[in-house]
Amino acid sequence: MNVAPTRGMRDLLPKDVEIREHVTSIIEEVYKKYGFQKIETPALENIHLLSGGDGGENEKMLYKVLKRGEKLNWSEGSDVDDLVDLGLRFDLTVPLSRFYANNYGKLATPFKCLQIGSVWRAERPQRGRFRQFTQCDLDIIGEDSILAELELISATTQALLQMGFQGFNVKINDRRILTALASHAGIDRDDHDNVFITLDKIDKIGRQGVVEELVSRGTSPYSAAKLLDDLQQATDDPRSLSSLPGLEPHVPDALHSVIDTIAGLSSGAFKITFDPTLVRGMSYYTGLIFEVAAEGMESSIAGGGRYDKMISKLLGKHVPACGFSIGFERIVTILQEQGSLQRKKPDKIAILYDKHRISNAQFGSLLQFANELRADAAAAAVPKSKNFHNQLKRLLDDDFTHYAVFDGGSLSRASVKPIVES
Amino acid sequence: MNVAPTRGMRDLLPKDVEIREHVTSIIEEVYKKYGFQKIETPALENIHLLSGGDGGENEKMLYKVLKRGEKLNWSEGSDVDDLVDLGLRFDLTVPLSRFYANNYGKLATPFKCLQIGSVWRAERPQRGRFRQFTQCDLDIIGEDSILAELELISATTQALLQMGFQGFNVKINDRRILTALASHAGIDRDDHDNVFITLDKIDKIGRQGVVEELVSRGTSPYSAAKLLDDLQQATDDPRSLSSLPGLEPHVPDALHSVIDTIAGLSSGAFKITFDPTLVRGMSYYTGLIFEVAAEGMESSIAGGGRYDKMISKLLGKHVPACGFSIGFERIVTILQEQGSLQRKKPDKIAILYDKHRISNAQFGSLLQFANELRADAAAAAVPKSKNFHNQLKRLLDDDFTHYAVFDGGSLSRASVKPIVES
Repeated sequence: MNVAPTRGMRDLLPKDVEIREHVTSIIEEVYKKYGFQKIETPALENIHLLSGGDGGENEKMLYKVLKRGEKLNWSEGSDVDDLVDLGLRFDLTVPLSRFYANNYGKLATPFKCLQIGSVWRAERPQRGRFRQFTQCDLDIIGEDSILAELELISATTQALLQMGFQGFNVKINDRRILTALASHAGIDRDDHDNVFITLDKIDKIGRQGVVEELVSRGTSPYSAAKLLDDLQQATDDPRSLSSLPGLEPHVPDALHSVIDTIAGLSSGAFKITFDPTLVRGMSYYTGLIFEVAAEGMESSIAGGGRYDKMISKLLGKHVPACGFSIGFERIVTILQEQGSLQRKKPDKIAILYDKHRISNAQFGSLLQFANELRADAAAAAVPKSKNFHNQLKRLLDDDFTHYAVFDGGSLSRASVKPIVES
Repeated sequence: MNVAPTRGMRDLLPKDVEIREHVTSIIEEVYKKYGFQKIETPALENIHLLSGGDGGENEKMLYKVLKRGEKLNWSEGSDVDDLVDLGLRFDLTVPLSRFYANNYGKLATPFKCLQIGSVWRAERPQRGRFRQFTQCDLDIIGEDSILAELELISATTQALLQMGFQGFNVKINDRRILTALASHAGIDRDDHDNVFITLDKIDKIGRQGVVEELVSRGTSPYSAAKLLDDLQQATDDPRSLSSLPGLEPHVPDALHSVIDTIAGLSSGAFKITFDPTLVRGMSYYTGLIFEVAAEGMESSIAGGGRYDKMISKLLGKHVPACGFSIGFERIVTILQEQGSLQRKKPDKIAILYDKHRISNAQFGSLLQFANELRADAAAAAVPKSKNFHNQLKRLLDDDFTHYAVFDGGSLSRASVKPIVES
């Protein structure tokens, strides 16, 4: 039998889990200080919830679960869709909307929510992409002021700094600015989403590339050029937005308040800049959007924005919401590649014993000595190998820092020696 | 749309997650001291792995996942089994065997392994049982001496003590003793598994109930009575096992060494007793088996044993293994019912502000003050309600311990007041 994980899945070895838990613990510590509360939703959701449209392209990558028992009523002519009733969640946002609608009476207002959990997408496997991966989402539900954005950006930047990232740039924009600019350039409201998808590629294909793709997709050359010109002007002189037709003045005001406040708190450790070309993929965003670009990295390490209409759809009443998603897998990969997990390793003592000579009764003394050491270190009994030198190397690989040799008698702390890297 | 979780699933609210993480943190802290290393396997496994027989009855409760894209080649006359290729894991033991076979070259020997993760079973929903639940498994792979059993029992009892359990009883037996007793009573080897299933009910249906069920299922009245008599004798005088035909003397010797060693380490905080009627459900056990019974509880809170043949099947070479599974959900339920989560709540400060009067610029001062408080507490901004008294009550429910009122100006720590329960 093939013992590898199934296609696109992976086994996490102790060292993998260790770095992931390091990142998790920083995230939890920082956000809990900001009053975020952790929740969990089930991995399986009703397939109708996962096919409602809010998942965008991700809905096409859904793992569908076969009905069970009598419900699996299968006859010739059945449609495949009749055979399934559940799906594995592909993100944490759609389940959060259901969770909030189901539980809002029991939750604080505003509800500051932290989720770290697996999601599943049947993507074409490619290097560094997995079909089960961890997402980390922060959401503030029920807060319509910019306090939500400020808290999310403040907490997220602090978490990133604690992970060792420096000099990153928080890019910020507002969906309503994009909309006003597109309308001002004469682009039909119905075409906005498609135009934004092209605009989103500006970092990769450049200004000229965007114009060409827009025109090839049906935007008039005049509108395409005007949109890009106006974007350039907004970048050069953000205050010019105050006279943009179709844009209520409180929108750029709020944007600048967020930038000024966060910049004031940053102590120069990172930047926050207005980027009118920032789009963010999902169509559910309704207001401010933001993204964190790490120095020298092509893709972002965190992103989010305001989505004031999504929860309302399920709950039937207006509920403002704003969220930030941290690129958990990406951050873990970066930290692994940098080898920058520079925490002091805790003491871990190997108690070496001769497995051919030890008696059942002597295991008792061994365990007693191990338990004494465990008061302030980790300890584990390990059978002695023939090649002592090789064994010490192997113990170092397994994160042991010290060893002691058990000869059947009593042992004291004085017998414990450090393993020295050679 | 129905916003409840799908049938048998549940949403975990902040207070649920909190108690679960409390239990998790005790488990991780204790077992890491014993040198256990945490791993993770994917939730989805190849359906053949999950249908191989080692999962016993659980294999019948498998969630099966529909093939995707071109692989889903569906025509009239297809069998339902042709439509699925993956399943959700129903336990952590079968995936661990695959994990070890796949990765053993990179793992320490012995490999002391900690897993805490979700499993899925399409059970008939009933009170207190869920279709997604957390399992917590500890396994030592590659250790054939009783050191494995000693370390597992020592660590597990210590974790249970730290969770607040006291006076529990570790029942211990050996599958080979059961086998020798059954053979000695004249029961065919082929009937043993069925006889043990009945014997397992002795706590519920009593000695007479067991005899009656055995006879009704085909055991001769003589053999049934003899088995129960011999079990009674083994209970009353464990040393009598040394003369039991078909039982190698090292088996009861090892059993008594484990009992004596653990009893010596227990400081009287719990008991360890030989229980020759202990069966444990799974047929893969090959040697010592054990179970922890909490005082006044009907079902056990942890259990495990040695399974020396399971991993060998996948790896093609002999690998001894021994495991303990902690009843995570059961323990969480008990702690919740006892309300015995007596940790000191960390400081959490609500900064109350008037959402109708605050300006964008003032949010900056508010955030700055909050960030100062976050140096040694959690803090969150909360809009002031009209009814101050009710709001304080609600804040207490949401785990706030202090509050401060922000009036737009500057704030100092002197403004922070404790919320007093009324």
